[in-house]
Parts: sequence; structure tokens; C-alpha cells
Amino acid sequence: MVMVKVGLLGLGTVGSGVYEILRDKKESLKKATGKNIEISKILVRDKSKDRGLGVDPSILTENVDDILNDSSIDILVEVLGGIELPYEYIIKSLRSGKHVVTANKAVISPYLDELHKLADENNVGLLYEASVAGGIPVIKGLKDIIKINSVSNIKGILNGTTNFILSKMYDEDLSFDEALSLAHKYGYAEADPTDDIEGFDAARKISILASLGFGAHVGFDDVVCRGITSVSASDIKNFKDLSLVPKLIGSATIAGNECSASVEPLLVDDSAPFASVKDAFNIVSIEGDIVDELQFYGRGAGKNPTANAVVTDILDIVLENYKEYSFTNNTDIKPSGSKLFKGNYYMRVSNVNSDKLLNSINDIGLNHKVISSGHELVILTEKIDSESMESMIAKLNLPKGSFCYLRIESENVNI
Amino acid sequence: MVMVKVGLLGLGTVGSGVYEILRDKKESLKKATGKNIEISKILVRDKSKDRGLGVDPSILTENVDDILNDSSIDILVEVLGGIELPYEYIIKSLRSGKHVVTANKAVISPYLDELHKLADENNVGLLYEASVAGGIPVIKGLKDIIKINSVSNIKGILNGTTNFILSKMYDEDLSFDEALSLAHKYGYAEADPTDDIEGFDAARKISILASLGFGAHVGFDDVVCRGITSVSASDIKNFKDLSLVPKLIGSATIAGNECSASVEPLLVDDSAPFASVKDAFNIVSIEGDIVDELQFYGRGAGKNPTANAVVTDILDIVLENYKEYSFTNNTDIKPSGSKLFKGNYYMRVSNVNSDKLLNSINDIGLNHKVISSGHELVILTEKIDSESMESMIAKLNLPKGSFCYLRIESENVNI
Repeated sequence: MVMVKVGLLGLGTVGSGVYEILRDKKESLKKATGKNIEISKILVRDKSKDRGLGVDPSILTENVDDILNDSSIDILVEVLGGIELPYEYIIKSLRSGKHVVTANKAVISPYLDELHKLADENNVGLLYEASVAGGIPVIKGLKDIIKINSVSNIKGILNGTTNFILSKMYDEDLSFDEALSLAHKYGYAEADPTDDIEGFDAARKISILASLGFGAHVGFDDVVCRGITSVSASDIKNFKDLSLVPKLIGSATIAGNECSASVEPLLVDDSAPFASVKDAFNIVSIEGDIVDELQFYGRGAGKNPTANAVVTDILDIVLENYKEYSFTNNTDIKPSGSKLFKGNYYMRVSNVNSDKLLNSINDIGLNHKVISSGHELVILTEKIDSESMESMIAKLNLPKGSFCYLRIESENVNI
Repeated sequence: MVMVKVGLLGLGTVGSGVYEILRDKKESLKKATGKNIEISKILVRDKSKDRGLGVDPSILTENVDDILNDSSIDILVEVLGGIELPYEYIIKSLRSGKHVVTANKAVISPYLDELHKLADENNVGLLYEASVAGGIPVIKGLKDIIKINSVSNIKGILNGTTNFILSKMYDEDLSFDEALSLAHKYGYAEADPTDDIEGFDAARKISILASLGFGAHVGFDDVVCRGITSVSASDIKNFKDLSLVPKLIGSATIAGNECSASVEPLLVDDSAPFASVKDAFNIVSIEGDIVDELQFYGRGAGKNPTANAVVTDILDIVLENYKEYSFTNNTDIKPSGSKLFKGNYYMRVSNVNSDKLLNSINDIGLNHKVISSGHELVILTEKIDSESMESMIAKLNLPKGSFCYLRIESENVNI
């Protein structure tokens, strides 16, 4: 193909960015690929809406079949959002021999195995760099790492909204609600922020990274997920005293044929690279047996960075770089909750009789050091695995909303 | 080619690592490429030396021509070190249609343009990921970025030895000499550390990154270079008071048809990502007009991480991923010293009459704030470009070894 035809589903923020890059960087892209890449059709909800992009109206359509049934289109680029419809469009496109580039983590996370199989059967590419960590080329990096390395650990700050909130709480002493308001004001949070603050967005992303890293499909439901809503201003004060910084981190680890994946607020040393990742930036750390640790950092969202990832995928399709990767699902590897994660824990309980609670904590056999007691009890626990900690917490039967606990990712804790 | 034959020049630290990966990861590499990759000959200085690697003695040779003249060898891997001989071997290999993978920054930095031309003419690949920042896939990342982006800035902690020394000085209050001794003890410093501590090693690396990023050959001599030997224990104390951390940073920036490249100790905010890069780790930051800032972090040296980069290059040759990149030297772009760099400066002068020196500083018109005066004068200057600062320093005619000045990479300085 000397001319590559792209069908674009969606002309929202990311779609507009893709359109602009393919328009404004035409010469540079031609130099990189030797081909002309042209958007030949764009699916929009309302053809009459003026988007200020100067798009030729004749390439706009409100009927997806105009794109799916157009055999002259080589690559489908899906930046719609949603799950059912995009899933259906992607399936149809792969079946009809179209390459697919998508930014849609909600489709890739659950259907990764099925979609890769379908792409392989039809000899087409399926790329989704923009589905994880925006502009950061972590999926491509990870695919290179696993050619040589056994990957043991993946960790990332994968959600800009929660990182913005936690950064503002830490750096500017805002309460959770104040920081969330600010995130709304700056456009970093959705009207309904649940998906972000409860960790679901990050869970889809770590599920994709874990699947690729371990060569086994780790689904959304395999990710143990806790959000950041329980972190209070008094916790932040305690964290500072302990030289620790809270971050919502997606983690995945493997031991033999068991793997664990989670999204939860963790505490990192204030001098650790993760602690320096502020506001809406993302970072991903990958550990392999040969290369050791690599980290990738950049903008985890936003129009241009995300569109950059989509266009990089388009170029990799055009350059036929998609052919070397094939996902094979090793079904011997079983996700097993969060039990492979282990560490000291920070735990705070409010509105309690500390002496009574400490007796209960001693009764259940959770070794600890008391940081502060009285009206509010704060302890650091011994090293304990995540599942055991959950069961300890359950045994204590604490009133909902009265407590907060975070695993500490540091070797500097002494209890 | 179903069987890919590799000729390996050098079986030192990195060479042994490459040998072990190709031996121990055979199945994984076959899965990634569909080919068997075999080292068919290895150049060593002494065939009789036992390296404990179990290498078949029949593939060892002390005569490089056994490899260069062997037309069955597809890929030459050069991990010898040195300049003249490796350069000659690489030239011969490219001319005879062998792909070349090298870890040799001392060859790539000055001859990048010439070698790429020769590789293109002979339709072979020339890859050198391991020449910059060890295991970090920054060259591959950069090549992807420039397909879409205009790169405006590249910055990196590119030398593990100096980063180790500065980390120890900062974190453990060691003097420069004590930290250098420790670097020697841990094998992080060469017997003659000049190349590292004077910044020459990092200068070769930033010259390579700048060349690729800007599409113009920036040579070693185009990089303005200052090492870390002038940083004293009293400077470190002052940096801490200012919440700044010293790092030896290679920088490159471009404006229109002018570019600047330098290696010099800079001061960064103690909460900045670069400040958290400790000991022998490296980091590289790249800014593009679309993707914004990306950072790549990992081990900048060491047997396995560096060998990982070499083998990744071998795989990219085997997978024919080398074909998409061609270096074109835009000779309109001119390196112009360090004048594009601008910032506030920290400056310390020892054993002076502060009042007298402050008069001189006022006389030459360098606006500043006095941090401490007396026996030792410490000031922060106004924002000034690097070349003007150099000429200010020259005008003050300070005794050699009595002073230290570092540009501050922070927006938080007020004078």
C-alpha cells in the first residue's frame, strides 16, 4: 500500500488529536513510513456539529457501517469510549481484515486474549498503546522486554486523576473533597469520578500490563481493587512525619504459576522515583531478570500525548512492526488475589478507644508499633501479606469509614 | 535466514552477558523471532583464558579476519571498547554487507553520520542502543518520538560513576575524594576516572542523543563540557539548605537552526524526578511538541542490562526493524556552544574578601542575591545564559580551584 486509508471512529478529544497529527505532520510521517496516511472516513454522532477542525464534511458519517463495510479502509482507529459497541466494531473490523488501533482499555482489558487470537487468524495488527498511560510507550517497551526477560514485577501510577488529588492533598494540605473539587475544576476528573477514585480505571490498565508481562490473561476481575477515598488529611500529616508519600499504584507480581494484581493506595519513600511523580503524570516500572528495573514516565492522559500513542500505533501497523508480537495465553498461570504482595502496613483508626483496640490487635496476633494513640490510633504493622492483612482488618470489625490502611513500599520501616 | 549467525568481537563483561543471554534464552528468542540465533565466532585476545562460560573453544579466534571475512556471518556485534580498531572493523563489516550492533559510544559519537550512510548504502542495519544509558531503551524510544514530534529538549543523567559520587556526597556527607574511593571500591569507577568525572563519557552520549533527536550531527567537540570535581562538601550543605540536588546532566536544546549541547553539574529541585535518580541509575528526558515530556529510567551500566540492550538490537536486526530508520544529517542546524541554556546560577567562591568580590560582581553587572558571605561567598545570580555566565566568571579572574558554579534547573528560585 502506497496510500494507507484510516477509518476513524470518534472525533472527540483524542480523535481530534489524531486528526490534527495526521494533517499537520504529513511530511514527517511520510518520511518515517514512505507512505501517505489518509483519514478517509470519520464516524461522528452529529455531522452538522462544527468542531473547528476544518474537516472535509464529505468524509464524516453517522453510520458506522460506512466504515466497517468499506474494504478500501486498511486501519480502523477506535477512540469512541464505551464497551459493547466498540467491541463489536473491533471484532467486525478484525474479521474483515482491517488492522485495529484502539485507545479503549475497557475493551482490551476483558477481551485481550480473544481479540489477539482474532487478529492473528486474520493476519492483521491489533495495537492499543494509548489504552495504558497515555503518551508513555510502555506497551511497546514491555513487548521488547519480554522477548528477552522473565518479568517478575510491574508497578505503575496509572491514573492521573487520583495522582492529582493525592498530590494536592500532600503538597497543599487540601482535604480529599477540596482536592477532588480542584480536579473537577481543572478537567482532571469526570462528573462521576467513581471509576478513577475507586481504582477501576487503573485496574483495567494493570490488567493489560500484567497480561502482556506474564503472558497470561489477567482480567479486570482478577485485580484486587481499593481506591483512595479513605485517605484523610490526618493520614497525610502522619505520612509526612514518616517521610512517606501516598500513591495509588497498580501492581502485578508473579511467583511460579501464581500471579497477583492489585490497585491500592501504597506508601513510598519520599525520595523514591514514584514519589516525584506529580499531578497528572504517570509512571510505570517493569522488572525483568536480565534488564533489571526500567521505568517509563510521561503524560498519562491529554489530547496530544494520547493521540501521539495512537499515531505511533498507526505507524507501527504501516511499518508492519505489529507482526512480531503474538499474545499467547498461558492458562497454567492463575491469578490468586493479592496474596503475593507483602509489606509493613500503616493503619489509622479514628474515634476509637485505643487501649481496647490495641488489645484486639494483640489478640489477633498482628505485631505492630504504635505511632500515636488516644482518640485516633495509628500503628505500623509487621511485614504481612496482603490477604492476611485483609483478614485481620475483617476480624477487627471496624466501623466503615473509620479507618485507613496502606501497604508500605519501602525497606526503611522498623517496627 | 532461518539460522542467524553472529560474530562477537569481545568477550569481556558485556560480551559474556550477550553470550549468556543468547545461550540461556534461546527458546524465548526463537519464539520472538522465529529464528535460531547462534554465535558462530568470538574474537578474544587470549584463546587459552578460561572464562568459566563453557564456550566451545573451536569458535574462539584471536584473528579478527576470521570473523570479518566470514561471509556466513550475518551480524557483527562489537563490544570491544577502544576507537580506531572497532571503527575499522565496523566499516569493513558494513561494506561487506554485515549488520552491525555496537555498544561503542566512542565510535558512534564521532562517526554516526558516516556509519549510517555506509549502512544505508549497503542495505544493512546499524544499531547501538547499548552505547547510551545501558539497559534503557532510549534510542529506540527516541526514534519513535521523532517520527511524529519535533524534539526541543533532551536531558539525561547519563553517567553512573558521577551520579554515584554525587549521591554519596549528598546522602552520606562524603567528600568528593571519599565518594570517589567508594566508587573505585564498588567497581563503579575506572582506575583513571577522568573520562567520567570530567563529563567526557556523558558528552559522547548526549552527542548521540542530540544527533538523533535533532536530525543533525552533534559531535563530541560540539558539547560544552564541565565535570564535577569543583563541587565541595560545603557546596552540598548549601544545596541542601536551598532544597536543591546536584546532578551531572547532559543537555541538548534547539531553537531554529541553532542547537546547544552541554554536560555540566546542574541543580534540580529535590522533589524533581531527576533528584530521585540515585547511585548508578540513569535517566533520560525527551520533550517533543506532541507527546510533551517522556522519561526513561533504568540501569545505565552493568553486564546484564547492557547485554540486554545489545540483544534487543540483535532481535531488531533479525526482525528487520532496522529498515525504517535512516539518519539524515541536516547541515543547516549548527551547534552553537552553550548559549541556548539559561537559568539562575549558584556560585560559591572560597578564600576571598567577600566585600571586594561583591564589588567586582556589581561592577560587571551580574545581578544576584547573597546567600552567605565572609570567608566564603555564596550567591544566587539572576537568570543568565550559559555563555554570558562563562564570560562573567572569566572577567572575575578567580583563582583556579577556588570556586564552583552550577546552573539551577528550577522555577522556584527567587533572587
